[in-house]
Amino acid sequence: MIIVLKTGATEQDVERVSELLRSKGLGVHVSQGIEKTIIGVIGAKERVGELAVESLECVEKVVSVSNPFKLASRDFHPLDTVISVGNLKIGGPEPVYMAGPCSVESRTGMIEIAQRVKEAGAHILRGGAFKPRSSPYSFQGLGEEGLKYMAEAREITGLPIISEVMEPETVNLMVDYVDILQIGARNMQNYALLRAVGRTQTPVLLKRGFSNTIEEWLMSAEYILSEGNPNVILCERGIRTFETYTRNTLDLNAVPVVKHLSHLPVIVDPSHGVGKWRYVTAMSRAAMAAGAHGLIVEVHPNPQEALSDGPQSLTLENFENLIEEVNRIVRVLNPEVTSANTNQ
Amino acid sequence: MIIVLKTGATEQDVERVSELLRSKGLGVHVSQGIEKTIIGVIGAKERVGELAVESLECVEKVVSVSNPFKLASRDFHPLDTVISVGNLKIGGPEPVYMAGPCSVESRTGMIEIAQRVKEAGAHILRGGAFKPRSSPYSFQGLGEEGLKYMAEAREITGLPIISEVMEPETVNLMVDYVDILQIGARNMQNYALLRAVGRTQTPVLLKRGFSNTIEEWLMSAEYILSEGNPNVILCERGIRTFETYTRNTLDLNAVPVVKHLSHLPVIVDPSHGVGKWRYVTAMSRAAMAAGAHGLIVEVHPNPQEALSDGPQSLTLENFENLIEEVNRIVRVLNPEVTSANTNQ
Amino acid sequence: MIIVLKTGATEQDVERVSELLRSKGLGVHVSQGIEKTIIGVIGAKERVGELAVESLECVEKVVSVSNPFKLASRDFHPLDTVISVGNLKIGGPEPVYMAGPCSVESRTGMIEIAQRVKEAGAHILRGGAFKPRSSPYSFQGLGEEGLKYMAEAREITGLPIISEVMEPETVNLMVDYVDILQIGARNMQNYALLRAVGRTQTPVLLKRGFSNTIEEWLMSAEYILSEGNPNVILCERGIRTFETYTRNTLDLNAVPVVKHLSHLPVIVDPSHGVGKWRYVTAMSRAAMAAGAHGLIVEVHPNPQEALSDGPQSLTLENFENLIEEVNRIVRVLNPEVTSANTNQ
Amino acid sequence: MIIVLKTGATEQDVERVSELLRSKGLGVHVSQGIEKTIIGVIGAKERVGELAVESLECVEKVVSVSNPFKLASRDFHPLDTVISVGNLKIGGPEPVYMAGPCSVESRTGMIEIAQRVKEAGAHILRGGAFKPRSSPYSFQGLGEEGLKYMAEAREITGLPIISEVMEPETVNLMVDYVDILQIGARNMQNYALLRAVGRTQTPVLLKRGFSNTIEEWLMSAEYILSEGNPNVILCERGIRTFETYTRNTLDLNAVPVVKHLSHLPVIVDPSHGVGKWRYVTAMSRAAMAAGAHGLIVEVHPNPQEALSDGPQSLTLENFENLIEEVNRIVRVLNPEVTSANTNQ
Repeated sequence: MIIVLKTGATEQDVERVSELLRSKGLGVHVSQGIEKTIIGVIGAKERVGELAVESLECVEKVVSVSNPFKLASRDFHPLDTVISVGNLKIGGPEPVYMAGPCSVESRTGMIEIAQRVKEAGAHILRGGAFKPRSSPYSFQGLGEEGLKYMAEAREITGLPIISEVMEPETVNLMVDYVDILQIGARNMQNYALLRAVGRTQTPVLLKRGFSNTIEEWLMSAEYILSEGNPNVILCERGIRTFETYTRNTLDLNAVPVVKHLSHLPVIVDPSHGVGKWRYVTAMSRAAMAAGAHGLIVEVHPNPQEALSDGPQSLTLENFENLIEEVNRIVRVLNPEVTSANTNQ
Repeated sequence: MIIVLKTGATEQDVERVSELLRSKGLGVHVSQGIEKTIIGVIGAKERVGELAVESLECVEKVVSVSNPFKLASRDFHPLDTVISVGNLKIGGPEPVYMAGPCSVESRTGMIEIAQRVKEAGAHILRGGAFKPRSSPYSFQGLGEEGLKYMAEAREITGLPIISEVMEPETVNLMVDYVDILQIGARNMQNYALLRAVGRTQTPVLLKRGFSNTIEEWLMSAEYILSEGNPNVILCERGIRTFETYTRNTLDLNAVPVVKHLSHLPVIVDPSHGVGKWRYVTAMSRAAMAAGAHGLIVEVHPNPQEALSDGPQSLTLENFENLIEEVNRIVRVLNPEVTSANTNQ
Repeated sequence: MIIVLKTGATEQDVERVSELLRSKGLGVHVSQGIEKTIIGVIGAKERVGELAVESLECVEKVVSVSNPFKLASRDFHPLDTVISVGNLKIGGPEPVYMAGPCSVESRTGMIEIAQRVKEAGAHILRGGAFKPRSSPYSFQGLGEEGLKYMAEAREITGLPIISEVMEPETVNLMVDYVDILQIGARNMQNYALLRAVGRTQTPVLLKRGFSNTIEEWLMSAEYILSEGNPNVILCERGIRTFETYTRNTLDLNAVPVVKHLSHLPVIVDPSHGVGKWRYVTAMSRAAMAAGAHGLIVEVHPNPQEALSDGPQSLTLENFENLIEEVNRIVRVLNPEVTSANTNQ
Repeated sequence: MIIVLKTGATEQDVERVSELLRSKGLGVHVSQGIEKTIIGVIGAKERVGELAVESLECVEKVVSVSNPFKLASRDFHPLDTVISVGNLKIGGPEPVYMAGPCSVESRTGMIEIAQRVKEAGAHILRGGAFKPRSSPYSFQGLGEEGLKYMAEAREITGLPIISEVMEPETVNLMVDYVDILQIGARNMQNYALLRAVGRTQTPVLLKRGFSNTIEEWLMSAEYILSEGNPNVILCERGIRTFETYTRNTLDLNAVPVVKHLSHLPVIVDPSHGVGKWRYVTAMSRAAMAAGAHGLIVEVHPNPQEALSDGPQSLTLENFENLIEEVNRIVRVLNPEVTSANTNQ
């Protein structure tokens, strides 16, 4: 950490700040520039982070030099983390495609869609049983019944399943049903929930909050990792900006940035990211070209009848076409990928 | 709701959309413009909200004409809601000032600060016992022990207390201690938590998420109201923008907008809003001049020793000065306010 | 400037960077932390700013410690700048109110509105002759004819006039007519224009770009100041965020921040800032309470007939009420203000 | 345009608004919903755009149904526009790569880099002669001398050249030297400049302002088109968000959106978009996969010596690698592209 003093700071000011730092057991390194005096703080990251020297009148600003995340950082774990879900590998050279409806709507519908997305090339089945909806009057999901339908679809198709968990109390229930727990964007900083999933060993797909920085996202991963669950998959799903033609702004820059800063796999959700089915295929191609480890896509056999998120859902035909296009890109970028992750 | 068809939409397209709407029991009103055909949808708000016609190829966009919130809306409840906390009224002409440290740190510290903020003019004591921290390595609060210290400070000073609740499971515990439950910005869309506090009758201070629209904020209030708790206080605490001189951008525009759209009281948190103590007093004056019903301010006797949020905490001297300045504005804008809400 | 090296940087890396710095005549100060090595760069701000060491593989990030602006900075000029326009003082304890229509529309209309806003308490008459419109098909202003009408209104009422200049070529023409040149938000980084107005001595009202940081705004002021024109007035007019209930988000935080960083006067434009007439008075009160030196407000005798920006224009009745309310706040915050800047 | 009246609007209100519309020669279509009355306005887009009915007390909001751009719209011009620059086609199936240094720095340097980027596969040479810099103390470019060096590099290599024009007065000078005029992000709404380039027939690369919506961008294209220059190339270069790991957030969503709304070619600038050389190649791959018609990339033989934008410039080696990777994607997405646009 570096402390920049205000122009005109006196020697007494420097001494006062240094004193405070030393009293916390930290090292001090004063550097006198032409206009500014800066003080380097030497010590363990955790203790430095707690300092509130910015509240001193003579301090202009405080600049952090280390990243605040540790277990999530590539400095700490240089090699890519690869997470196993059954026979699938998430985070390796083979891409992973997750697909399914926004909400589980019926038993037969779920089974049918599972079969269809599998045929089209999906590896994992998504579906919402507990739905976070901005309106209390909107369809809130089928709850445990929905999980049962998903589990049945898994039995028939062999596809592992992913579904969103919304509160600490239901983590144990969810773990009995799903192969991957999803933390939604609105819960990215729900620390009680992060801790609860961190106490399991079930893989967790952690969506980036729509207004969270990459650093905050990695800090939320750190919560899960620090509780003992190493199986964290990051998922970029669009951030909020001033643009209104798209529902969100899918931030693909996050893909190479996260791969540089962290060892965790990163998946892209183009459906929420752009919010209109018309642009989902183009953004899926772009995501894979940017280096994403996979996609999670909303697919519905009849989008205009969907109980939620119809406008961003692909038809099965469009989804087949999407898989075909992204696979072409994956193969050309990584010629060793002779066979994609099998979904058989 | 209005459906705008794409340029070149045919009569068959119009018929197809109309059919779909009628099959859901909705009324249809077609209007042919020079360039565009639009279809007005007539029916109950809740059913219209579930439609996914945007997924049809011939539809260009869908525009909502009603606000999606109902119980929170001034259309539904034209008069201002005034919430009683002991003898205090929140939402009436008298302003309410809440003050205290970010975190409860010790028993004696809490009692001392309670006495001091009361002397300075505060009506309610704030303090964090369960702390949402972006790092798992930061101080996470004293938990129930902290609540006990706050309750003791209330006994001594008579000030009601407010503290943040972070998970549904602790709502019952919190209700035994605090006079107002706070929902933090990061939990504004934690629907399980909103429902849980909605099932109590304890007043709830609902902070706006730092990247949530005013509409989403009112929808989160709707969650609490629709569970049966009418005592919701809104709190603006800064939104996230590209500006970096301030920690957030305190959005005071939200004050008159919310007062126009809703009957609920609105309080401003300038400490998180701007994030630097130096600007807190100016923004407090501005908040009250914009029409806020009160303030919630971080005060610490020794900010550079604070275990959290030191840089934005006021000293007691600065807080006294703040109260003096905002009271001058309140009195001049509302001459009937002869005596502010008493804190005796 | 501080250079933070990547974790694992070697001594050779440190030497390589130091070498590069010394070759540019800069001083070097190496500081070895527990996780990171940082290098302090000592030398004149201008030369340091040109370095591109971030492109070296071993460099993680570069942190600037000085503000990049100089003439605009309070470090350089500790006392408030007060700018004279006729008998008016802008930047002193007396507030200055500028009012008038978005566009000059007719001769008689301009004269009438000038008389009416003067009666209501305005000190300066605003009006657009050259209009920046996002559509080429919208009304583009009356041009020089509009300036003539404004000048005539000045002759009759005695009110100084302000109008926007849009291109370097018309600066000389404008200077012959107006008392204050306005640089619009969209031109805040039109450097050719900034230089051109910097070569006059006419006061310049510099609007903040709707997506510019405070630092960039002060750098644009620096362009004008560095050409020799010391008469720069800053104007906050709303920034672009994700919120859609308001046209922009008026950023009142900028008022105390700018007053801390700079000596230049700061004026607020609530009309563009919030974009709906209904909220203009509340935000005007807030702006003055935050410490603004004045306001610039759109007023139109008949807003629904305005050729531009009708939805945010106040009627004359509402403007009278606004002045009455803000003056109460100004007087109570600054009791020495016995008489406001006279507009007689 | 649709006018939504406030809940509780009376028949007189409806009549009053209708009257106003009819008095402007517009058609009126009233539709009574359960909660809201809406009024459809029928008439030519330009006249509707000028209405200010939002200023009426009974009006809640006004919703536009048509896009405000016309010549830029795909409705108006269904087929893709393909722009010829010498033998190159911009906007067709063959991608176009523009590369070169941020600033022209010297004659020999320019010639050398031209030869090197041509060898690597670039089709067009970029370089800044007039530089928009946020600081008046930064290097401002070599001016006309820089253009001469570029022209000489063109003579030697055969590569057409592109450079930024900053003010209307220099348009004529620039046209004598360059093959494509660039409008920078900061000047996207400098209407005098847009008009000036619109009066030439030289192709114009129009960068999106870093905080402008796609609609505003297309409206700026409309300014150029409506003056008679049909040769507009759009360029996405990153928008401003709250994220700080990247300099801007390259908004690739804009690529498919713009291709849907407009017939104009769209090029991506990953160098400014992400602002760090480390991520430029990944984002270039993503841009081409999203469907961009080409790239504009900053390349410098020795980035740490660059006079501007060093941190985002690629070395020549990295640029060669970039071209190799994006070409693989282009060929696999569009197998008919047997030979890319030749740069011989």
